[in-house]
Amino acid sequence: MLIDPVDDVERLRADWHSLGEHERVGKFRNLPTKISAEFFPRLDTRSQARLLLALDRAEQHVWLQLLSPDDAADVILALPADKRAALLSALDEPARREVDVLLTYRSDVAGGLMSTRFARLRPEHTVDEAISYLRQQALSLETIYCAFALDEEQHLLGTVFLQDLFCADRGKTIGEVMHRDCVTVAEGMDQEKVARLLADNRLQAVAVIDHQGHIVGVVTVDDLMDVVTEEATEDIQKIGGMEALDAPYLEISLRRMIRKRAGWLAILFLGEMLTATAMSYYERQIERAVVLALFIPLVISTGGNSGSQATTLVIRAMALGEVKLRDFWRVAWREICAGLSLGLFLGLIGFARIVIWQAVSPVYGEYYLLIGLSIAASLVGVVLFGSIAGAMLPFILTLCGLDPASASAPFVATLVDVTGLVIYFTLASFILRGTLL
Amino acid sequence: MLIDPVDDVERLRADWHSLGEHERVGKFRNLPTKISAEFFPRLDTRSQARLLLALDRAEQHVWLQLLSPDDAADVILALPADKRAALLSALDEPARREVDVLLTYRSDVAGGLMSTRFARLRPEHTVDEAISYLRQQALSLETIYCAFALDEEQHLLGTVFLQDLFCADRGKTIGEVMHRDCVTVAEGMDQEKVARLLADNRLQAVAVIDHQGHIVGVVTVDDLMDVVTEEATEDIQKIGGMEALDAPYLEISLRRMIRKRAGWLAILFLGEMLTATAMSYYERQIERAVVLALFIPLVISTGGNSGSQATTLVIRAMALGEVKLRDFWRVAWREICAGLSLGLFLGLIGFARIVIWQAVSPVYGEYYLLIGLSIAASLVGVVLFGSIAGAMLPFILTLCGLDPASASAPFVATLVDVTGLVIYFTLASFILRGTLL
Repeated sequence: MLIDPVDDVERLRADWHSLGEHERVGKFRNLPTKISAEFFPRLDTRSQARLLLALDRAEQHVWLQLLSPDDAADVILALPADKRAALLSALDEPARREVDVLLTYRSDVAGGLMSTRFARLRPEHTVDEAISYLRQQALSLETIYCAFALDEEQHLLGTVFLQDLFCADRGKTIGEVMHRDCVTVAEGMDQEKVARLLADNRLQAVAVIDHQGHIVGVVTVDDLMDVVTEEATEDIQKIGGMEALDAPYLEISLRRMIRKRAGWLAILFLGEMLTATAMSYYERQIERAVVLALFIPLVISTGGNSGSQATTLVIRAMALGEVKLRDFWRVAWREICAGLSLGLFLGLIGFARIVIWQAVSPVYGEYYLLIGLSIAASLVGVVLFGSIAGAMLPFILTLCGLDPASASAPFVATLVDVTGLVIYFTLASFILRGTLL
Repeated sequence: MLIDPVDDVERLRADWHSLGEHERVGKFRNLPTKISAEFFPRLDTRSQARLLLALDRAEQHVWLQLLSPDDAADVILALPADKRAALLSALDEPARREVDVLLTYRSDVAGGLMSTRFARLRPEHTVDEAISYLRQQALSLETIYCAFALDEEQHLLGTVFLQDLFCADRGKTIGEVMHRDCVTVAEGMDQEKVARLLADNRLQAVAVIDHQGHIVGVVTVDDLMDVVTEEATEDIQKIGGMEALDAPYLEISLRRMIRKRAGWLAILFLGEMLTATAMSYYERQIERAVVLALFIPLVISTGGNSGSQATTLVIRAMALGEVKLRDFWRVAWREICAGLSLGLFLGLIGFARIVIWQAVSPVYGEYYLLIGLSIAASLVGVVLFGSIAGAMLPFILTLCGLDPASASAPFVATLVDVTGLVIYFTLASFILRGTLL
């Protein structure tokens, strides 16, 4: 069986989020270097940045130097702007130059994720020469699994995977074994797209190209696992009806978290105020048939729930590229069918509930069948409207150049609340005219 | 510049989801083999399975054989149970045996993801011998980036990364360069945990071990990119208030999708019926002060929105391991603070809205200040309750052994609707006693 000193690192990682700022620095400083050298590179960027700020210059130098240039650039970007220059100067000259290049990119595009330490080959090299070269350089490369054949002006000619080198005849040239038709990404490509491209093509790494076809770096798959997780977290938080937090839940300061939540909550609240305005139009109806008021929450919330389902499905399908703008009508048609079926199903339950209740204790008066009918019809209406509105809103936001994930469940629910009231009272007025109303 | 015949494959992939079953088979059959050989392995499992069902036996053999055993096993599992044996028999003998082993695992655990084609080394091998061995075997291995040193009984002694072999002296033995303290995973470990482990440790691959310490396979990082995406999709759909769909939105049959949505919608509807019951207790109050009914949707939906924020945050933080059960009190305290602040903030807006409205057109009568106070106090109450309930529910579900993601936004909203009504009418009765009520 394996002994597992990795356990120490794992245990510390697991506890890390629960520790205070002070404890962290203390614990970290007391680690044997063997452990801290394993531990530091695996910490998330934010924790690395905070830790570095609390350490001495000599320590900063050691730990920052330990990171690969792309990770070091991320850490520096995570610092307050006035601390960046100081930390950057803690790096050695060559590393500093590399990090400087990376700092010119936004951190969420290919350029901001890439490493500049990639293997450069010439097409006339033989397979054996290439393998020895990779072997010599292994320590200083971000990845040895993938190398790039370049011409004299650093234009990318092709990609060579180590697996190909291993499988090829020793005497063949790189020009013969390289893939000319390889996937590459532009410097400015969004990280989510890069991640999807690598996942779909099952690539270990991909070359980053500037607009003149020069290779500027390589993005490796291990950097992208975090990207996929981060992007999903952002979408989930938006779907929950708030701005995406930019730090773990227990780490973000309370004030910052409240601010991130207050914005959308206030917008939704202002939207929801329209329900009070809408209700005031139906005040007389409520006065004449208070029984109608009893079902308001049931009707509008059910519409909100069905809208929440539809919007969540469509937002995620869009994020995964399964649904595109041109699928608008197909999605609309599906949601009309789904909304009608679900509405009829719930309408039936609602109707049955009123009839059964009435049989047990006659609280709804002589017109209970008509009341039941009003509720059932309204449920069909709001569930149908909720499903359609929930599904279409992400399309509309995308068309306006906004993030479809902003069509959050609470946003759709609010929209459906207001419309739901109008549907409910309109149908009830029609059905109950001459009896209760 | 690169020419990019990959484009054909990409274009076809992009259109794939929009094509009908028949068109797919037609298009696929008409592809030149060079393209289809690139295209088929990159399709998602479900599409591969469907395509294979529509093809002839000879074609089935070609394409199924092209997949690595773990992918072939996934495809076979994606078929209807009565078609599996036939397709399995389309494989060659050694491949069939490998797939058979994999089929004994659930598809969402390490054993179901792993490949059995890993590189086996002996500790007494030299670095140079190991590299030549990997070079010989490269074609038949799932990964060459990671090899395993085993004793005679197939117990794992250590892991060797190709990068280490490249960096080490040629004459050293595997026993000297291998990592004895390597991370391994058990056969039955949940795929989400495996993915997090690899991401956290920035590993390319990890050994899968049975309960006797024998190595049974290797899981590589490219298999896990999909896992991370899938798991996030499941959580997002659950947060949206439904069962996770098991196919892309446009592909799942309408009937199946409606069934997946109807279950939770009906449960929420039954829960929401309690609002009608609760309201019936306050029927007399509404009769005496219809103005109270106007604000019901505003008050309860705002509670639902704040609950949706809190539950989404906590569910995601739990899925990422940032929040654990023992953080219960810290989370509770944060949500009490957040709920109070947000409630006071919205309460103020609500109060201001009523005062301003009254100044413009006096619809709320002489007691408008007391009405405003009732609304403001209720908002503080429901937002506080919503935040706490939303944050605590995922904990409670976890304690009961259920998936915390079932504490969906609509679930919390429903819970808060019922309680919100009670809070609203209780506070209103207290504040308006002797005036309106």
